[in-house]
Amino acid sequence: MNNALDEGHQLVDCIEDAVKVLLQGLGEDINREGIRKTPFRVAKALREATKGYKQKVNDVVHGALFPEAGLEGGSGQAGGAGGLVIVRDLDLFSYCESCLLPFQVQCHVGYVPSEQRVVGLSKLSRVADIFAKRLQAPQRLADEICTALQHGIKPTGVAVVLQCLHIHFPKFESALPDTSHQGWVKILVSSGSGAFEEEKADIWTDFFRLLNFRGVSKDNAHPGVVHQSWCPSKSSNKLEQSNSAMTNAVVSILRSLGEDPSRKELVGTPCRFLNWLMNFRNSNLEMKVNSFLLGRNNNPSPCGKIGDTEVLICSELSLPFWSQCEHHLLPFQGVVHIGYYSSDRLDAVGRTILQSVVHFYGFKLQVQERLTRQIAETTSSLLGEDIMVVVEASHTCMISRGIEKFGSSTATIAVLGRFSSDPAARAEFLQSLPNFCST
Amino acid sequence: MNNALDEGHQLVDCIEDAVKVLLQGLGEDINREGIRKTPFRVAKALREATKGYKQKVNDVVHGALFPEAGLEGGSGQAGGAGGLVIVRDLDLFSYCESCLLPFQVQCHVGYVPSEQRVVGLSKLSRVADIFAKRLQAPQRLADEICTALQHGIKPTGVAVVLQCLHIHFPKFESALPDTSHQGWVKILVSSGSGAFEEEKADIWTDFFRLLNFRGVSKDNAHPGVVHQSWCPSKSSNKLEQSNSAMTNAVVSILRSLGEDPSRKELVGTPCRFLNWLMNFRNSNLEMKVNSFLLGRNNNPSPCGKIGDTEVLICSELSLPFWSQCEHHLLPFQGVVHIGYYSSDRLDAVGRTILQSVVHFYGFKLQVQERLTRQIAETTSSLLGEDIMVVVEASHTCMISRGIEKFGSSTATIAVLGRFSSDPAARAEFLQSLPNFCST
Repeated sequence: MNNALDEGHQLVDCIEDAVKVLLQGLGEDINREGIRKTPFRVAKALREATKGYKQKVNDVVHGALFPEAGLEGGSGQAGGAGGLVIVRDLDLFSYCESCLLPFQVQCHVGYVPSEQRVVGLSKLSRVADIFAKRLQAPQRLADEICTALQHGIKPTGVAVVLQCLHIHFPKFESALPDTSHQGWVKILVSSGSGAFEEEKADIWTDFFRLLNFRGVSKDNAHPGVVHQSWCPSKSSNKLEQSNSAMTNAVVSILRSLGEDPSRKELVGTPCRFLNWLMNFRNSNLEMKVNSFLLGRNNNPSPCGKIGDTEVLICSELSLPFWSQCEHHLLPFQGVVHIGYYSSDRLDAVGRTILQSVVHFYGFKLQVQERLTRQIAETTSSLLGEDIMVVVEASHTCMISRGIEKFGSSTATIAVLGRFSSDPAARAEFLQSLPNFCST
Repeated sequence: MNNALDEGHQLVDCIEDAVKVLLQGLGEDINREGIRKTPFRVAKALREATKGYKQKVNDVVHGALFPEAGLEGGSGQAGGAGGLVIVRDLDLFSYCESCLLPFQVQCHVGYVPSEQRVVGLSKLSRVADIFAKRLQAPQRLADEICTALQHGIKPTGVAVVLQCLHIHFPKFESALPDTSHQGWVKILVSSGSGAFEEEKADIWTDFFRLLNFRGVSKDNAHPGVVHQSWCPSKSSNKLEQSNSAMTNAVVSILRSLGEDPSRKELVGTPCRFLNWLMNFRNSNLEMKVNSFLLGRNNNPSPCGKIGDTEVLICSELSLPFWSQCEHHLLPFQGVVHIGYYSSDRLDAVGRTILQSVVHFYGFKLQVQERLTRQIAETTSSLLGEDIMVVVEASHTCMISRGIEKFGSSTATIAVLGRFSSDPAARAEFLQSLPNFCST
């Protein structure tokens, strides 16, 4: 029996047990078919997402340093002696040490070769990935990649710039739907060593000019500044009821990953993760919304008129939602578009009610197909039998596991009544939808 | 001893031997440090890129079908009975069966659930990947993904739309550099089954409207039309000298991958691949360009004036190049920007000469760092000692192996003379560069 494998197996089992405690704390039946294998899937995903703890930079860089001449004569820098090399737009993901949710990273790495040798380009990405696949904070991630490359390649200098995206936490304070909500906290950090150690070095300007093409500028970066508050869990004051069994379960997950739960940055992590997770606890409340609140006739006649008033397709677009994938216990998040027939658009109160419906079904362990159906059914009881619902979402489980499909998104559709039978009605509504941006 | 592993090991060895024959046919010393391990790397990459031959759809889909209710009553479609589900923008890559080069695929998959069950979203991507990781043509790839999902999930219908990008082959006919050159052949194909079987079905309109956000429309797709000519190797009439040992080596690679080299689509593949590869054979020609051809003083004084004429930074931007990565025997391709000091810009003849320099160093087994240095050195002998060269490239080896960093690009810089010592000169030149698009 292989000890390492055996140990790995036990640790996964330990994570599975912890996930069962979390699911029960959320009020779920852990034998329900959709979540029966969720503990197994979560453990597997976490193990994959933190495999960097067991990887070594030297194993990656070893054998990938190639001799490469510099300039003859030497009135400049080029090739293996001084010619700046930049690899841009590497998509990575990491796990936030503050709240245990995954965050996306767009990584740009540069180095100045020395001693007439260069490193294989893909190794810059592979080394970055070793440190991304751990519990991280953006600045520390940049620093660790930078230091590892400096030690591994021994070049004249290394520069690392990371653009990190972290999911927003819901703000319940605002009563009205916040349609300006972008869904993501963005931050840019940088780290430099050797020729890049000095923040004001001219070579940083060269580096950023070549990233500038994509909207990055040095003014956005604050090398050396630690962004304590980038994770929205730290600014969330909401306190959720969770029990000590759940807290202990998260602590045991941290320990299983090889982390020290008493490390300063991790002390509050179980509580912050549970603050997020408890948004999605199962509730047996029924959604009862009085359609008279919407101030409207909820049964427009199918002939296209209510009395003498013509009935048109109206829509409420881009209602934001948060949800948690019941298969992987990971966030998915995006917008809901609702189409209906009416002689006039909803007022502010009506829109708030629709947003409440969206939140009611979003804040659960979910799958997007069910969310779409539930919103359509409830909306139908409010706005009449002719309803079309489109949900567009980014699924963290599509990027933060082995699959790593950055930039992918999922759209689901429910059609009721006239929208089901009339392709022209669907086409008119679909044409009115704004562009969905997955980040 | 595990027989499957043993067999795999022998096949990889067989690919390694074939790659050695190819390298020797290119005139390379297979013991040179940069390419000593290239046979091993090529074999490993090809094995990884064609692992789909050994994967089964049922292994992926099994256990990932979840019960999910449809609408009660049934005056519409939603959830697990009829609600359209679309996963968009899945980045994949495949290998072209016509020429053995990798091509990029942006994959969009939709299906209509039936029998109150849905499939895990990531499985749509994983099933697509099984068929992408084989030697393929775009329409066949779309058809195979579609058929496999129809059989595996048994839904009401499946739709697959693929946007494929294939590297252009160099056109030597044009004497002048083609600055409008985009570097990529793009094609859009689609395949449908069940509710999507009929091309004119209204549900195709719904599907394309949701892709429309990203510039895809049904008018660009021609379901059922086979694009015989999408691979540029088929329209290339250039005949290269290659020997029968090299042809036999490519045939043995095809056989090692489990393909039948006598399959109709593969009969011409060894010849087409060698037509590509022989562009990059080693030549001992020296690059001798007479600077008087450029009709200029090649030593502008460092004070910023030649006689009474003021000397400014001039640039030749976006000169296209093709090259072949010597570490992985895979294309990298992009643009070269050259900055220099002069009182006037080059004329058409001068630009043609610079493009020749770029092609001369591009058409070899290369690394980007060396290419950049060589262009800078040669340009310096033509345009004076103050030279800056920026090379921007997409490396196929960054996407078509295990690393799969779609959208990444690499920039390398060489600076000579004044550009080496004057940050403001570098900044001025860098600011003039156009946006680089990796696809």
